Amino acid sequence: MPFGNTPSVDTSNSPNARLKPVPIEAVQLEDRFWAPKIQQMRETTLPTQHRILEETGRIDNFRRAAGKIENDFQGLYFNDSDVYKWLEGCAYSLAYQGGGEVERLADSVIAEIAQAQCGDGYLNTYYMFDREDQRWTNLRDMHELYCAGHLFSAAAAHHRATGKRSLLDVALRFADCIDNLFGEGKKEGVPGHEQIEMGLIEIYRETGEARYLKLAQFFLDKRGQNLIGGGEYHQDHKPVRELDSVVGHAVRALYLNAGAVDLYMEMGEEALMEAMTRIWTNMTERRMYVTGGVGARRAGEAFGGDYELPNEIAYSETCGAIANALWNWRMLLATGEARYADVAELATYNGALSGISLDGRHYFYVNPLASRGGHRRQRWFGCACCPTNIIRLIGQVPGMIYSTSENAVWTHLYAASSAKANVAGAEVSIQQRTDYPWDGAAEMELSLDKPARFALNLRMPGWLRSAKIEVNGETAEASAPGSYASIERDWKSGDIVRLALPMPIEQITAHPYVEAAAGKTALKRGPLVYCMEDEQAPAAGVIADGQMTHAYDKELLDGVGAIHFEGVAGETEGWENSLYRRRADMSEEKSALRAIPYYAWANRVEAPMRVWLHLR
Amino acid sequence: MPFGNTPSVDTSNSPNARLKPVPIEAVQLEDRFWAPKIQQMRETTLPTQHRILEETGRIDNFRRAAGKIENDFQGLYFNDSDVYKWLEGCAYSLAYQGGGEVERLADSVIAEIAQAQCGDGYLNTYYMFDREDQRWTNLRDMHELYCAGHLFSAAAAHHRATGKRSLLDVALRFADCIDNLFGEGKKEGVPGHEQIEMGLIEIYRETGEARYLKLAQFFLDKRGQNLIGGGEYHQDHKPVRELDSVVGHAVRALYLNAGAVDLYMEMGEEALMEAMTRIWTNMTERRMYVTGGVGARRAGEAFGGDYELPNEIAYSETCGAIANALWNWRMLLATGEARYADVAELATYNGALSGISLDGRHYFYVNPLASRGGHRRQRWFGCACCPTNIIRLIGQVPGMIYSTSENAVWTHLYAASSAKANVAGAEVSIQQRTDYPWDGAAEMELSLDKPARFALNLRMPGWLRSAKIEVNGETAEASAPGSYASIERDWKSGDIVRLALPMPIEQITAHPYVEAAAGKTALKRGPLVYCMEDEQAPAAGVIADGQMTHAYDKELLDGVGAIHFEGVAGETEGWENSLYRRRADMSEEKSALRAIPYYAWANRVEAPMRVWLHLR
Repeated sequence: MPFGNTPSVDTSNSPNARLKPVPIEAVQLEDRFWAPKIQQMRETTLPTQHRILEETGRIDNFRRAAGKIENDFQGLYFNDSDVYKWLEGCAYSLAYQGGGEVERLADSVIAEIAQAQCGDGYLNTYYMFDREDQRWTNLRDMHELYCAGHLFSAAAAHHRATGKRSLLDVALRFADCIDNLFGEGKKEGVPGHEQIEMGLIEIYRETGEARYLKLAQFFLDKRGQNLIGGGEYHQDHKPVRELDSVVGHAVRALYLNAGAVDLYMEMGEEALMEAMTRIWTNMTERRMYVTGGVGARRAGEAFGGDYELPNEIAYSETCGAIANALWNWRMLLATGEARYADVAELATYNGALSGISLDGRHYFYVNPLASRGGHRRQRWFGCACCPTNIIRLIGQVPGMIYSTSENAVWTHLYAASSAKANVAGAEVSIQQRTDYPWDGAAEMELSLDKPARFALNLRMPGWLRSAKIEVNGETAEASAPGSYASIERDWKSGDIVRLALPMPIEQITAHPYVEAAAGKTALKRGPLVYCMEDEQAPAAGVIADGQMTHAYDKELLDGVGAIHFEGVAGETEGWENSLYRRRADMSEEKSALRAIPYYAWANRVEAPMRVWLHLR
Repeated sequence: MPFGNTPSVDTSNSPNARLKPVPIEAVQLEDRFWAPKIQQMRETTLPTQHRILEETGRIDNFRRAAGKIENDFQGLYFNDSDVYKWLEGCAYSLAYQGGGEVERLADSVIAEIAQAQCGDGYLNTYYMFDREDQRWTNLRDMHELYCAGHLFSAAAAHHRATGKRSLLDVALRFADCIDNLFGEGKKEGVPGHEQIEMGLIEIYRETGEARYLKLAQFFLDKRGQNLIGGGEYHQDHKPVRELDSVVGHAVRALYLNAGAVDLYMEMGEEALMEAMTRIWTNMTERRMYVTGGVGARRAGEAFGGDYELPNEIAYSETCGAIANALWNWRMLLATGEARYADVAELATYNGALSGISLDGRHYFYVNPLASRGGHRRQRWFGCACCPTNIIRLIGQVPGMIYSTSENAVWTHLYAASSAKANVAGAEVSIQQRTDYPWDGAAEMELSLDKPARFALNLRMPGWLRSAKIEVNGETAEASAPGSYASIERDWKSGDIVRLALPMPIEQITAHPYVEAAAGKTALKRGPLVYCMEDEQAPAAGVIADGQMTHAYDKELLDGVGAIHFEGVAGETEGWENSLYRRRADMSEEKSALRAIPYYAWANRVEAPMRVWLHLR
């Protein structure tokens, strides 16, 4: 096996990262939630996306740049980034399971990319030939640095996954080209769409070349100096360290934050982390959907003001929830604080996962929390950022389950799996048996090459009310929800840890200022947000103190848990000629209603959907 | 008494108007709702507004145009319209009660206006001197025709009220100037802000000069021909007769509609009325607030899409509700259909009346249906359309209570009052005793100069469940809510009609697609919408089947009815660090809560307010 060490974010040598990921290839999923998705990604999604990248001219753009074909540049000026993001997804898939069609496709695409690169290292297929003289002339709008950043991220992941330098060498040549041009005393500028910060830091981590880290810092430091117009949309209204709220284009804002945390993990500058904490507080207390989705406004694909979280017109772009997961994953690596794992989990299982259909071939760009019906995922988009982004996230999931720190193994996401980690000089294998997220019971059986003393830090999710932990049948102390229960002891092979993380169905209520949700209830169980999806959904109400049960239904939506509850059907009919009616004139028959996981909506009938349900 | 016949809309000779208004001067209010407001308008609001018109240079602009003072034009380019609208308010006040300071102030302002008029009749103080060559060059944006329209409306009302030709002569000279310039075979164009259609038709009605009617028709007919850009904002996207939804700037849209109905009443073109009916259906079934307010969007002061009716960011401009009342008043005059009286009443008592403070000196431009606190009416605005508009509406109220048709007297709004009307050759005096809108019992005592046979058409408001009518102690047949109960008989002096229009407190519910209101309840009683206004309002809930009582409180807000109800206080505190909470963790103490009439909010403490309340 030529494969190396492939964490999605490689903090193994980052001096200010509290946690080191247990890499993707060290984990094998055996669950019925993620394992089929990872397999589907390999077998269906990645090959299908490759076909579309070909059909839409995205790969031809590289062939054209290489002089191999003659035609016009096809599509949007940032289409190169889709190819890079697809390759990053391939890298995670290959880290999980090498070889096969994915490896073959990836190698072929990398070959096309390599041939398109200019002699000086420059690589952007839009700016070839007659557009050469426009290179680097519009950093705000033209996504040149953004595309480069995705190349760097993909290249680092690909090298880690396969040991092959084919994409990494291309990336480093382009990074050197950019580094020659930009920097203190050289050309000044910042990207209008952030991403290169993360990308540069990953190739720094992969190569140890400090100039890439320095360049990432340069691009962060120069924000807020009006180099690209000073707008909130581009997070250029203030220096990064002075930010106190999430504003502007949601994906840009959170990619910036993710890059800032990466920089913090390398440099340790507390002012950066303080800014990130302020922003995080603003976002989670004022500007995030109950699904972990972000970016309420369609206009500018942007964060709204405080408590501006409409349901039906929610933008909540798939990429926004992905960016939220990526940022929070880095906040978790930096700090080991469970609150970040809570948000990463929430965004991953709900707001992001809703972006891809159960068949792995259709995508949502926008993820509303209410629909009058008719919302369908699409095969592709003109601006196709979301399809290639969701595979980056799903591909990283195996690497987000465990991590280590000095003398500790940490669990973050729970999933039936077997994994290996090195801690306290021992190699520890963990066999995890659980039906998470459908059930909160989990059992971990440890095997060690030799007995060792370390802490097993078990995440107590924030959605918990209370947990129970047993080690070898004896009660161990659980900690509060939203923390890690740390069990430090001498571990040996055959030790068994049992967790009970009860998942009652929770009725969630929203801050009174959230106009479209306040006074309503959202059903949540464990990490999953549920929704009603049927003709009754718009008018239905939850009987506040009614019975609610949860049951897994293997026939429903490829197998999901469903919440069955007592409700009031309400009247969706008979409204045609009225906007307002007397409540007394409406029938409110008691009815047995059902909610399904939000991520799985719009995979059956084209029915109305509601996350926030009326209370009765 | 030199005073004439002053209906707000003079349909006395309109061939296609079903109803003829009983004019303002034929009605004397004796109630505790409107009578004090009409008096306050005369004693406080009109003189105060005159002072501000002076302070802000609006009257100086006329002096400047007359060459009497030298300075720059002051304020916004359409500020002349505020002076005309104030004069129209004065006219209604003078029709109700002549003489006094209002007459003196009006005469003085009219004198300034007359002196500012150009020799050719042109009159717009913005387009004087160096701007002369820009006249009529930008009909879309510059409100030249709009200002003219307000002059015409004011002049007709003033002439009717006082018999004086001072303002009418100015208006006719300007109308002739416009008529010389615009029309078929002459200059083509339409106003970007409608109003002139109504104004021209009123001066046609006042003078009988058909060219004014023809010009009004020209301005209506030419819409939708891309003369001003073809935008929905200006209702130029389609010909008027093809409109099927209310779109664009709300006030413009409804002024256009009002003018179209005026034209219909003169010309009888059914296609116009069909379009108006389509639009009305779209508005009332999809795009109108429960307060009768319209124009959900701040951007463009515009109608939103279907069911787009947010509460806290509602625009619902005072002028929009006024326009809604004016349009529906005309629809009622044209058809005699009670549904239009319902909307006129709703908008007048709620969405429009909230635009002026109880002290008669402060105004809302925007009328949200929810507030986090801090909303205060202002003394004036840079764009001061609303303050001078609300006095036009309040001034018309006495003329909106009764009307006549051939052999029928109609009641629309109920109010303690004495009134005179001519019907079936008799002069009928009606003494109405009621505490409407605080109570739904009404008694009407008729006096006739001679016995006569006619129908007394009594409005059965749409908010009714059922009514009782007695004539001289004997039961007469009431009709369904939202219709007129017609009592045809030989009437004689001393006949007494007693009405019982019970006003239970109603819980109103909104269409499931109205995101910010669906599943909530609004309290309504009679024509009035209520709201909660205190610190508890955002989190409070109404216990669905709890007790509710209504009581008039003469100490509260200058005397209003208040609804006392059983509710749940909810938690407004403790949310600082959370956007979402478990419902189970929140206390929901039962609490005695109170709602006040919406029109009277923001007259006490700066507390949060909610029209739509949660249900528990």
